[in-house]
Amino acid sequence: MVNIAVLGYGTVGSGVVEVIATNGARINQRVGDEINIKYVLDLREFPGDPIQEKIVHDFDTIVEDPDVQIVVEVMGGIEPAYTFVKRSLQAGKSVATSNKALVAKHGAELLSIARDNNINFLFEASVGGGIPIIRPLNSSLTADEIEEITGILNGTTNYMMTKMFYEGANYDEVLKEAQDNGYAERNPEADVEGYDACRKIAILSSLISGQQVDFEDIYTEGITQITKEDMMYAKELGMTIKLLASCKRHENHLHAIVAPYLLNQEHPLYNVNGVFNAVFVHGNVLGDAMFYGSGAGKLPTASAVVADVVDAAKHLHRNIMTMWKSDKLELLPIEDTRKRYFVRIGGEASGLREHLERDFGKVEIVKVEGLDNEFGFITEEMTERKYQANAAEFPEIKHMIRVEG
Amino acid sequence: MVNIAVLGYGTVGSGVVEVIATNGARINQRVGDEINIKYVLDLREFPGDPIQEKIVHDFDTIVEDPDVQIVVEVMGGIEPAYTFVKRSLQAGKSVATSNKALVAKHGAELLSIARDNNINFLFEASVGGGIPIIRPLNSSLTADEIEEITGILNGTTNYMMTKMFYEGANYDEVLKEAQDNGYAERNPEADVEGYDACRKIAILSSLISGQQVDFEDIYTEGITQITKEDMMYAKELGMTIKLLASCKRHENHLHAIVAPYLLNQEHPLYNVNGVFNAVFVHGNVLGDAMFYGSGAGKLPTASAVVADVVDAAKHLHRNIMTMWKSDKLELLPIEDTRKRYFVRIGGEASGLREHLERDFGKVEIVKVEGLDNEFGFITEEMTERKYQANAAEFPEIKHMIRVEG
Repeated sequence: MVNIAVLGYGTVGSGVVEVIATNGARINQRVGDEINIKYVLDLREFPGDPIQEKIVHDFDTIVEDPDVQIVVEVMGGIEPAYTFVKRSLQAGKSVATSNKALVAKHGAELLSIARDNNINFLFEASVGGGIPIIRPLNSSLTADEIEEITGILNGTTNYMMTKMFYEGANYDEVLKEAQDNGYAERNPEADVEGYDACRKIAILSSLISGQQVDFEDIYTEGITQITKEDMMYAKELGMTIKLLASCKRHENHLHAIVAPYLLNQEHPLYNVNGVFNAVFVHGNVLGDAMFYGSGAGKLPTASAVVADVVDAAKHLHRNIMTMWKSDKLELLPIEDTRKRYFVRIGGEASGLREHLERDFGKVEIVKVEGLDNEFGFITEEMTERKYQANAAEFPEIKHMIRVEG
Repeated sequence: MVNIAVLGYGTVGSGVVEVIATNGARINQRVGDEINIKYVLDLREFPGDPIQEKIVHDFDTIVEDPDVQIVVEVMGGIEPAYTFVKRSLQAGKSVATSNKALVAKHGAELLSIARDNNINFLFEASVGGGIPIIRPLNSSLTADEIEEITGILNGTTNYMMTKMFYEGANYDEVLKEAQDNGYAERNPEADVEGYDACRKIAILSSLISGQQVDFEDIYTEGITQITKEDMMYAKELGMTIKLLASCKRHENHLHAIVAPYLLNQEHPLYNVNGVFNAVFVHGNVLGDAMFYGSGAGKLPTASAVVADVVDAAKHLHRNIMTMWKSDKLELLPIEDTRKRYFVRIGGEASGLREHLERDFGKVEIVKVEGLDNEFGFITEEMTERKYQANAAEFPEIKHMIRVEG
């Protein structure tokens, strides 16, 4: 029997209990042993709940019980999660977590403690919810140099972008609708400002580089400035707008960014709609690949957590190597990255064209019916530094959105 | 140092050599040891080729060399691949293969020999080329009961279906074009009759059930009967036609099928175009997920083979459990499976409507401009047995295509 303890009986925690109850026979068959939930740590009581008897309020009960071999941390936030996870690992217990904030900040250190204790620190559910992406990066895409990893990693904002695109709705309307449907928090900042996606791309960037990528170093722009009018231009261009979290290799450097992007119809992420997430990967020999699925939600996230429990149970006292050292990776500054830019600008194209083409290269003017006295265009590829310097000459510019590919 | 031998210096074999040459440093870092190609088995000589010195013509040299720890089988076909792989495993060498015919036919036995010898038999590249799907099924989707796995598993036919859909081309035209581009063989039977996809879905069905699914038991229908006119109906319906290879759970039974299907725009496989492959998975807790990428080609396939080499090298003398026993699974017969059917029928709808609705339920008539004196409709959901019995009453039926979802 393999005894586990679940820290936190919230959405994901109760999902973990439910998944093990529902698919226990199959799961035990895969482990080759019986998975038993011995404790559930929560401050609350749950009278009448099947786990009522297993509730404990004191973490020490868990960490001091030598029978507990795997700890599932699904509380979220940095503290007390960090302390509990670290103490669990130091006590020789493997940990499976869905906590992206914890992994982004302390992943390298926790992996190193796990390695030293010949156990495992696993975090499949921290990125992309139920989508298998961490384990494929660690154990499937091992013959490749990963040159790009770009994801739609936040379901709330993707739901909002999808509604704005297909229904022509305003930002404020879709935010309210997302909140009413329970897809967005009352305080939606972590989602709409891109902070959630930023933690996740920091984790993926650390995994593909094998070094620590600090999320604070990643340029992060949310979707709060995206308007109905921007979406009208996107449609006119045969494109859409998505909040992308991306890490790309430029020669010997990586750069990472979270920002809204214009995406054309041929891009595999173009059709990822609603609350779904997806991760696009380009390997130097594999070429393009994509992983798609439910990026959040009780059961999909619990599915990934329990898969980690299975893996931990199959590798008790045997570390699964993960390349993520604590030495910090310096990202290429955003100013030095090259891309194309979609620009909305006030006035008439005719008078500005010559000046625009001198600064932004050969541009094609886009007009949208109903949006008078303004137009749009996509620049040639240039660094952000050059774009910003040139854009400063045009006070008429209303908005810039980066273009993917 | 981990010594490997490559059996077959054809497309995939030379790809394996190239991937190891290109990404060797990174690969060795992941293994924690140096991967060295000691032998390449081929009947031919390759004067001037970097592997010239490593070419051997006799398999015994490899199997009798105790330094060889991993054998890469990329010859294809059943014999001599089967004999070589079996002897390698019996000699205590792990095997990585891209050979779908071999895996579909002898997978259970070869896995069992590997288990007995505490080594590994790995075959990621046998399904979906570079797309990680075998390892995710074995080690990521372990918390789920997999209720459906449906793939576009053959790049040649998907290229043809895509051309027919987007360019309105005829079957014969696109086949010739695919042959001219090297996407289809001169004898295209294995692809266009669905035999290739059938082997692959047999492997996936075996993995999700943990039992032997014989490919001969899988109803297999290719794309040779799909016409330009069928695609016109698909467009009119807002759908497309794809060759799907699918395995679904119906209560306690699995059924598997390879056939052209009508697919609506909301299905994640709808946008998988050209030579790309994708695998859609539905788990009882995970929900929907999809894996997408290059299903064939020298380097993507070699990427998957080398990832297996990395895994084998990290698990020398330690078996990675794969649930696939040799006891045969009885599939639900196709007659008992329920679905909807698109039917093209000669004549005018008005006269037949009452009779049609009595047999096929409430149907919506579809007419396509330019196709006079015929119409189409989609039946309500019913078993194939009932459909076939009812269809026998209508000699006017020209063609039936199954509908997914």
